[in-house]
Amino acid sequence: MTFQEIIKLHPHPTSVDRDTLLRCIEECLDCGASCTACADASLSEEDVQSMVRVVRLCSDCADECEATGRIVTRQTAPDLRLMRTMLQACVAACVVCAEECDKHAAHHEHCRVCAEVCRRCKQACDELLAAIG
Amino acid sequence: MTFQEIIKLHPHPTSVDRDTLLRCIEECLDCGASCTACADASLSEEDVQSMVRVVRLCSDCADECEATGRIVTRQTAPDLRLMRTMLQACVAACVVCAEECDKHAAHHEHCRVCAEVCRRCKQACDELLAAIG
Amino acid sequence: MTFQEIIKLHPHPTSVDRDTLLRCIEECLDCGASCTACADASLSEEDVQSMVRVVRLCSDCADECEATGRIVTRQTAPDLRLMRTMLQACVAACVVCAEECDKHAAHHEHCRVCAEVCRRCKQACDELLAAIG
Amino acid sequence: MTFQEIIKLHPHPTSVDRDTLLRCIEECLDCGASCTACADASLSEEDVQSMVRVVRLCSDCADECEATGRIVTRQTAPDLRLMRTMLQACVAACVVCAEECDKHAAHHEHCRVCAEVCRRCKQACDELLAAIG
Repeated sequence: MTFQEIIKLHPHPTSVDRDTLLRCIEECLDCGASCTACADASLSEEDVQSMVRVVRLCSDCADECEATGRIVTRQTAPDLRLMRTMLQACVAACVVCAEECDKHAAHHEHCRVCAEVCRRCKQACDELLAAIG
Repeated sequence: MTFQEIIKLHPHPTSVDRDTLLRCIEECLDCGASCTACADASLSEEDVQSMVRVVRLCSDCADECEATGRIVTRQTAPDLRLMRTMLQACVAACVVCAEECDKHAAHHEHCRVCAEVCRRCKQACDELLAAIG
Repeated sequence: MTFQEIIKLHPHPTSVDRDTLLRCIEECLDCGASCTACADASLSEEDVQSMVRVVRLCSDCADECEATGRIVTRQTAPDLRLMRTMLQACVAACVVCAEECDKHAAHHEHCRVCAEVCRRCKQACDELLAAIG
Repeated sequence: MTFQEIIKLHPHPTSVDRDTLLRCIEECLDCGASCTACADASLSEEDVQSMVRVVRLCSDCADECEATGRIVTRQTAPDLRLMRTMLQACVAACVVCAEECDKHAAHHEHCRVCAEVCRRCKQACDELLAAIG
């Protein structure tokens, strides 16, 4: 996506490995949008009564992925302590959401796909955490 | 991106043309992230004093693109009045931001690219507005 | 709230009437949080099947109120065209959400209160629109 | 604010101490709006060159406070692991932002007030963390 091109044009890029950074931001964006879409699809299912926790945790995960995506996007005068705790919270949101979506994966394809996106986002956050050190 | 796959799996998709819808959401996401990145890059420029309005309008555009992206993503029981005014506000945010970024495009490549993304997002919103009727 | 004190300390405040501005921001904040809370309470109701549209429209209204609140908070180099369309979209979100919450007000107290907050926020946006001209 | 009334009307409130919960949400809201306002005021200062890090960290803190405020607001089927890491990230954002604002408190009143709000929000998050256990 084009935003990655803009990040590469920052006058003082951070020393963090760029590919790891860009991949994490893209996964946060995709996971945020996926969780908004999965919460919405779950809300329209006939068995919505059993989807309540999916809607809740997908909403949380969307909120956290978007906030993390924004913070990791910024390269001006970064604070690594903050970046680290944000990525850890994002990992937690993705893990919790994936676990809940897994429970409904057999009956609802959107939950199966959403769990995959969450795990991919978790991994990208883990890799950025490792790169930050 | 994977979120588009999840939107396709919604149990009761809206009657709006799907490709137009998916393109609009993707552009809102890319424009939101691009504007966050351009505001941040502008903040790190030596001539930040002359970039103040870029930072401000890119921040506005990021906020509005993300809100519009979320609302357009939801297909459950949509309200077209609301979707229409949101898309109109998003168009306004993209136009205003592109105009400001254009002024700095000759000196700052990130502003040139950001103005392009804003115009692409504006067009995708216009097309969804036309599809909604 | 304290944020209003900070807005008053802006080095170059906008010419918009300050009390109208501060009231609008406060209502956007309260309405955004109220809609998040009402969507969540509705999701926990036994008759969640009939609350699906409330959850959806409260989520939309929360997203739009928060984006509008941020944009109206910023006083640096404002663009009135953008502010106007944002406020109009916020009015639409509040009207649509209040109408839906009204339908459930007799059975669910949180919907009755949420509809009131939405109408108060709509009015504060209308007043700021009138002040901007 | 009215949103607190709605939270009290949730059909299945969490077992977390309600006053601690409501105070934390209110502080997250106030801190989020305060940081948006302080980032914006800093951007308009004549010495904007020396305010760059304030703008950046206030923007981060606003994003994180809003996300945490939303997640803590939801009482439906909560996940305490997630709530805990979110509150910890919010504490980090508040601490980092307060430290930076402190450096400018002598010259810019909005930074002095913003640092206070950040510390109040940090404390409210710490208290909710203690209540969750």
